[in-house]
Amino acid sequence: MHLTLIGIGTGNPEHLTLQAIRAINAQDLILIPEKGEGKADLAELRRTICDDVLTNPETRIVAFDLPVRDEATADYRQRVDDWHDAIALAWQDAMATHPAAQKVALLVWGDPSLYDSTLRIAARLNPAPQIEVIPGITSLQALTAAHAIPINEIGAPFTVTTGRRLRDDGWPPGVDTIAVMLDGTCAFQTLPPDGYHIWWGGYVGMEEQIICEGPLAEVSAQILKMRAEARENHGWIMDIYVLRKEK
Amino acid sequence: MHLTLIGIGTGNPEHLTLQAIRAINAQDLILIPEKGEGKADLAELRRTICDDVLTNPETRIVAFDLPVRDEATADYRQRVDDWHDAIALAWQDAMATHPAAQKVALLVWGDPSLYDSTLRIAARLNPAPQIEVIPGITSLQALTAAHAIPINEIGAPFTVTTGRRLRDDGWPPGVDTIAVMLDGTCAFQTLPPDGYHIWWGGYVGMEEQIICEGPLAEVSAQILKMRAEARENHGWIMDIYVLRKEK
Ligand SMILES: C[S@@+](CC[C@H](N)C(=O)[O-])C[C@H]1O[C@@H](n2cnc3c(N)ncnc32)[C@H](O)[C@@H]1O
Ligand SMILES: C[S@@+](CC[C@H](N)C(=O)[O-])C[C@H]1O[C@@H](n2cnc3c(N)ncnc32)[C@H](O)[C@@H]1O
Repeated sequence: MHLTLIGIGTGNPEHLTLQAIRAINAQDLILIPEKGEGKADLAELRRTICDDVLTNPETRIVAFDLPVRDEATADYRQRVDDWHDAIALAWQDAMATHPAAQKVALLVWGDPSLYDSTLRIAARLNPAPQIEVIPGITSLQALTAAHAIPINEIGAPFTVTTGRRLRDDGWPPGVDTIAVMLDGTCAFQTLPPDGYHIWWGGYVGMEEQIICEGPLAEVSAQILKMRAEARENHGWIMDIYVLRKEK
Repeated sequence: MHLTLIGIGTGNPEHLTLQAIRAINAQDLILIPEKGEGKADLAELRRTICDDVLTNPETRIVAFDLPVRDEATADYRQRVDDWHDAIALAWQDAMATHPAAQKVALLVWGDPSLYDSTLRIAARLNPAPQIEVIPGITSLQALTAAHAIPINEIGAPFTVTTGRRLRDDGWPPGVDTIAVMLDGTCAFQTLPPDGYHIWWGGYVGMEEQIICEGPLAEVSAQILKMRAEARENHGWIMDIYVLRKEK
């Protein structure tokens, strides 16, 4: 079996690359998660993408119910491992509905290589498929594009990290620029307020996109407010930001 | 004037996004550097892309000679600054050939936000244009896709840096994973040989793509050899790699 993980970008159907469109049309089977992401606006995006670009009449689309994490499992790593096992089983059940399918694909949010578990779930399949990855526009790129900024200073390094790490470990050593993803709690609040510039975005690349930038001390409260209101309106939010030490 | 910087990916014409194709077709003028990159295979890529996807008969393509850096300027930062000034002037001369053009674009290698100077050159234009950025697939994504690996370990940070930094400053603090770009001298050779895994790629995403991965101590010599041979054959090489500390 040949399994293709196709990066689809971060919510703008026009983030699709020509390579992704070609890959979608090369499949026997495309697996689409039916629920469980808890983000109603997003549930339909993968179907919309297939409706828009799928021209191969042989390609079948099969929905599967995305298992939910068992919050009763106390250990975080164990909880995630169990969940990934369950997702691999759900894929296998979905594939079993089309036993002749040789080429199977999943549509992955953003890029499959950035803070995404699809590759790790795929590694659980038995027998092991041949795996191919098609890169997709990441939320970090959608953010820097929205602000029209370079992520790096000239010749300088930057670190990509998570909200949890920023909150628990503070500013990473050795860099003046960081990008923060997977932050449910606005970890930028835990930094000393002065000396940073922030470029923040919610729903980047999407119609709902909201952005805000400025010295952290000046715009922090405004971002918290924008974020809370947007989350209230849409029922969910995904946000990401770049922070740079001011010189 | 409205200036759009369009990310085109890293040498595979199919890296183009639908958004990039739409943007290309929305322009009055597209500026294409004619020479100076010193990479014959690449010189034609932007033209090929326009030939492939440009359907708007109103869009004009104008070539300009990319100025070369003045190696007589001793100070590195000054040399780069002067060069960027010269490029901004070359754009302005090229635009002056079509004074009515309101919408002007440049096609940028990879993503305009990652180790690219186009945004900084654009900031030199006078009067200042309105700037829009269209994200493109980066070489880092083409690398991780080619190896079918996640860039990060679960929930862990990673640092993106340059060959010069790795050589001069050693392994960056606080991270177990780094991605290295802009490395003309295989800076991985300056690390202690044991304890690292490397995923390396040259010409990633392109037809010429070559990749190699393994424990650094085992594959380092092989990469040096592959790189030297490929460079000899093609006359140039661009390469990139991910390094991870072995546990
Ligand atoms: C599980 S990670 C997936 C990242 C994805 N693979 C990518 O390439 O962007 C989810 C995190 O990505 C970020 N994210 C994804 N899509 C986003 C969007 N449209 N707007 C803002 N942030 C987004 C948020 O930080 C979110 O917590
Ligand atoms: C000036 S930077 C431009 C990066 C570009 N904006 C991007 O998004 O990938 C040039 C560096 O990118 C990397 N690079 C760009 N294209 C590449 C390719 N096709 N294969 C390998 N490395 C590449 C190399 O490390 C090279 O030194």
